[in-house]
Amino acid sequence: MATAGKVIKCKAAVAWEAGKPLSIEEVEVAPPQAMEVRVKILYTALCHTDVYFWEAKGQTPVFPRILGHEAGGIVESVGEGVTEHAPGDHVLPLFTGECKECDHCKSEESNMCDLLRINVDRGVMIGDGKSRFTIKGKPIFHFVGTSTFSEYTVIHVGCLAKINPEAPLDKVCILSCGFSTGFGATVNVAKPKKGQTVAIFGLGAVGLAAMEGARLSGASRIIGVDLNPAKFEQAKKFGCTDFVNPKDHSKPVHEVLIEMTNGGLDRAVECTGNINAMISCFECVHDGWGVAVLVGVPTKDDVFKTHPMNFLNEKTLKGTFFGNYKPRTDLPNVVELYMKKELELEKFITHSVPFSEINTAFDLMLKGESLRCVMRMDE
Amino acid sequence: MATAGKVIKCKAAVAWEAGKPLSIEEVEVAPPQAMEVRVKILYTALCHTDVYFWEAKGQTPVFPRILGHEAGGIVESVGEGVTEHAPGDHVLPLFTGECKECDHCKSEESNMCDLLRINVDRGVMIGDGKSRFTIKGKPIFHFVGTSTFSEYTVIHVGCLAKINPEAPLDKVCILSCGFSTGFGATVNVAKPKKGQTVAIFGLGAVGLAAMEGARLSGASRIIGVDLNPAKFEQAKKFGCTDFVNPKDHSKPVHEVLIEMTNGGLDRAVECTGNINAMISCFECVHDGWGVAVLVGVPTKDDVFKTHPMNFLNEKTLKGTFFGNYKPRTDLPNVVELYMKKELELEKFITHSVPFSEINTAFDLMLKGESLRCVMRMDE
Repeated sequence: MATAGKVIKCKAAVAWEAGKPLSIEEVEVAPPQAMEVRVKILYTALCHTDVYFWEAKGQTPVFPRILGHEAGGIVESVGEGVTEHAPGDHVLPLFTGECKECDHCKSEESNMCDLLRINVDRGVMIGDGKSRFTIKGKPIFHFVGTSTFSEYTVIHVGCLAKINPEAPLDKVCILSCGFSTGFGATVNVAKPKKGQTVAIFGLGAVGLAAMEGARLSGASRIIGVDLNPAKFEQAKKFGCTDFVNPKDHSKPVHEVLIEMTNGGLDRAVECTGNINAMISCFECVHDGWGVAVLVGVPTKDDVFKTHPMNFLNEKTLKGTFFGNYKPRTDLPNVVELYMKKELELEKFITHSVPFSEINTAFDLMLKGESLRCVMRMDE
Repeated sequence: MATAGKVIKCKAAVAWEAGKPLSIEEVEVAPPQAMEVRVKILYTALCHTDVYFWEAKGQTPVFPRILGHEAGGIVESVGEGVTEHAPGDHVLPLFTGECKECDHCKSEESNMCDLLRINVDRGVMIGDGKSRFTIKGKPIFHFVGTSTFSEYTVIHVGCLAKINPEAPLDKVCILSCGFSTGFGATVNVAKPKKGQTVAIFGLGAVGLAAMEGARLSGASRIIGVDLNPAKFEQAKKFGCTDFVNPKDHSKPVHEVLIEMTNGGLDRAVECTGNINAMISCFECVHDGWGVAVLVGVPTKDDVFKTHPMNFLNEKTLKGTFFGNYKPRTDLPNVVELYMKKELELEKFITHSVPFSEINTAFDLMLKGESLRCVMRMDE
């Protein structure tokens, strides 16, 4: 392409400081260096993690920064040493990568790459420790190696999944993070068998994706647990058969769930990050075979407590990161599930706005009105 | 047999009260009732659980009682409705049973039968709530449905495994409890892959059986953890390659283990029942793929505590009961492993005494000198 090797000037939404509306700016995007790829983003969605690091409560603030990590795009140019991508490839950026060479990448059981595992504090490229974004020569920080709130971005080759070019990027862009995290938690980790019962704690986008996994696995009963009763109506579209609001009961929610299911759930998935929900998620599974899976991110001072007899009674406790998907290896296959019409991604995309209205997407999420709002970069 | 349907008078070791030497007495053993089998015990071993309930510290004392649950015997006669056993069958009594009809028995994943799951407080038969043992007409309580410290005993059909009649009962008798618990914890639950690293906490009989499972799985490195340095020499015979005594280190033992293994163990199995060992066992496994398995029985006030990020970092925590073996279904296959010379049971049988010297077996175990002491009932 004519732009290869040159700085590209384009629009990006810059977060100048914590909690302040993003501002659409003209940024300079440097060419990709060794093992990097410059990608033209066509669609990007907003995930709660973007909002969390934009609010920057309880973390080291890294500003000015270009957020964004759920997206779909097309390769514009590649840096030295990149052999598996060429201009024109359709790709999903990945907030956590896969180097394919470390112990984790070589293990069949892990997706937690030593080199490219998510790093929320690093605002620069891993190769040279510098940013590829500038405004009038002044560097702007990256976010989790993706920074998709920009018409062009530079990404390490290990943080890109090459996908079927026929897949509609305005839909599969949401596979980059939230959907795969929840869906994979159920299908790759909890692994309910056909006819089993599943509880999902937290009915946000990740929880509903976990629910979609339960529905596709043929669960006979899917119990949604949430403090907001309004969530039930929406959850029904995702296969939710029963709803439990812990606020409606005087006894602990795990006891309610155990009574409802004659001894406990076969599987349970926790998608809130609340420590009490995590403990209930484990307590509510059936002895002998129950599996609880933790997905929601806890705070640093949380302590998980339980009586060890729960383990000796053959309950299993697991957690997952990115739904146990190996990001580069497995995401193209998740895209194919959508192409085969097995996944109903449209249900998750409740809103779509032009990129210029990105602050509307933030408002919708903060008000709890959207599951996913997809932004169209060309508007 | 000539004795079928009649009361049999024979010798049994009776525990009259907590902590007092057993006394060999002549007992009357009633004929088996519906779904029961009367078994002639040929060999019985002493397990720490017998000692624990004989000491009766922290439990409801049930005396006078005939203890014993690791044994091998031959069916003498069967009660009404028993179709799968006939006089002459070789059997292993089981302290926890398998009715084959409840949800647990029907589940592929559980071995915790609703009807016949271990019950340490019940001193009578489940069918009619009565004892089959009397001394001069006065009932003597059963223990975990087996009471193998008697030349004859009556056992529910669901608590017997029919085994290869060519298997030497003086060896395979130890498969009834401790060996299978530890061995199964490794091969059925932790499931190390060939070349992986395994830590075993607690090098008693159960821990060494877990180690035997690691050896047979082809573990590249087996680290034994015990507070008693004398255990290492013996453990080497079971494949132990490294020994760690937590007392030798100022830092927590899980940190020592993580340093020794470049990031953590692939698998770890806890066989002490000490809550701190349980926590260390989980903390020491590798992120991304590590699996910790709890086997040792905790006390009722213990609390397992950990940071929930350990789960999100893809460490798995499981526990097991009887090594996840379905007792009636699976034990005959474990016997076959011994027949194929894959298991080295002889290493576990450190002592053998005549039944009349049963108190010697107790002394050896209390002093920590024996792994298993097998008693010969005909002497």
